[in-house]
Amino acid sequence: MRIDIITVLPEMLEGFVHESILARAEKKGLAEIRLHNLRDYTLDKWRRVDDYPYGGSAGMVMQCEPIDRCITALKAERDYDEVIFTSPDGERFDQHMANDLSMKGNLIILAGHYKGIDQRIREHLITKEISIGDFVLTGGELVAAMIADAIVRVVPGVIGDEQSALSDCFQDDILAAPIYTRPADYKGWKVPEILLSGNEAKIREWEFEQAMERTRRLRPDLLDSD
Amino acid sequence: MRIDIITVLPEMLEGFVHESILARAEKKGLAEIRLHNLRDYTLDKWRRVDDYPYGGSAGMVMQCEPIDRCITALKAERDYDEVIFTSPDGERFDQHMANDLSMKGNLIILAGHYKGIDQRIREHLITKEISIGDFVLTGGELVAAMIADAIVRVVPGVIGDEQSALSDCFQDDILAAPIYTRPADYKGWKVPEILLSGNEAKIREWEFEQAMERTRRLRPDLLDSD
Repeated sequence: MRIDIITVLPEMLEGFVHESILARAEKKGLAEIRLHNLRDYTLDKWRRVDDYPYGGSAGMVMQCEPIDRCITALKAERDYDEVIFTSPDGERFDQHMANDLSMKGNLIILAGHYKGIDQRIREHLITKEISIGDFVLTGGELVAAMIADAIVRVVPGVIGDEQSALSDCFQDDILAAPIYTRPADYKGWKVPEILLSGNEAKIREWEFEQAMERTRRLRPDLLDSD
Repeated sequence: MRIDIITVLPEMLEGFVHESILARAEKKGLAEIRLHNLRDYTLDKWRRVDDYPYGGSAGMVMQCEPIDRCITALKAERDYDEVIFTSPDGERFDQHMANDLSMKGNLIILAGHYKGIDQRIREHLITKEISIGDFVLTGGELVAAMIADAIVRVVPGVIGDEQSALSDCFQDDILAAPIYTRPADYKGWKVPEILLSGNEAKIREWEFEQAMERTRRLRPDLLDSD
């Protein structure tokens, strides 16, 4: 699969793209991630991509033209399954959406910045709006990176250990059981006896009980959702 | 305020710290953000900070000792209001939490990686677990960056235009009104007439109606929550 991220701050994401699971997926030939600097698509001689909002409210708004030109240029090269915009009023991102998107071919993610983007872009060019939660960030760059990470890590073959992804939180709609590693006693903080017992069946049972107990206590809504 | 982020992949976040609102806040003397490489705190000669989980499940687990040593070293230098761990079973992050945390002095954010961290760290050293949503990422680095961004941008003085932050989505528990900028007609896509009218009172009324309409349609839960 291929993910194209459009942003005014590609420098912000370069470290992430080169140091994360995305780089590993790219090396294995399983995913391509490309960053596009929106300023490369403006006709403005100062490379401006924003302007004051109509109606006199505060903040700056990303203009139609550079975004339209960038998306049009990408679409001329290949077909895209979705053109995603990250917005607090979009559909809430979750593991099911990540799994679904991981089965697509090509995705564009437009990272908003400043006060937001011209509404006409959302109406005419965006096919899917995704929200990460009820809070506001300086820009959509981190959200775009997060969506890319969550999607790419479930592409088959990307994580070495498939079993690890399958036993994650939320893959069964329950929280994960607590985990422990050596030493068994650290400053008097002890690992539960059962995990040292070597009795595999009992351990799996304990893990399932712990996972259910945590889900009931912390996220009963996950159990109600069927 | 000061935010210390503990991670096994500081390279992933360096671009973000240097190119984002965090750098601007730092220049203004309003916030300090420090990245700490967890591997600097292990006694292991190969700088390993993870080990196999007890009980034979898949994935690797971050060990107690390096995390304990890193947090202890930081605490020896100053007091911290919270030691935050990013985990899918934590309390859901939202704008209210961002506003609250922005009034704290010093915060530590531990970014999990691999399969997770030894449960004993969560029991003995973490004071607050924060979730960003029901999905799994390769690591907590992006979540830590996102929390830092959301917190720092509401610290008074960080954003040039205070009014912009105040008129954001969620500051009044409603979605924002659609926004537009020049040109008024882009390829036949038109800005709503009212915004070009110059009638300030009518425009504010239209914006409020639009915001309420969007909230009712897309996020009725926000209106029910009182």
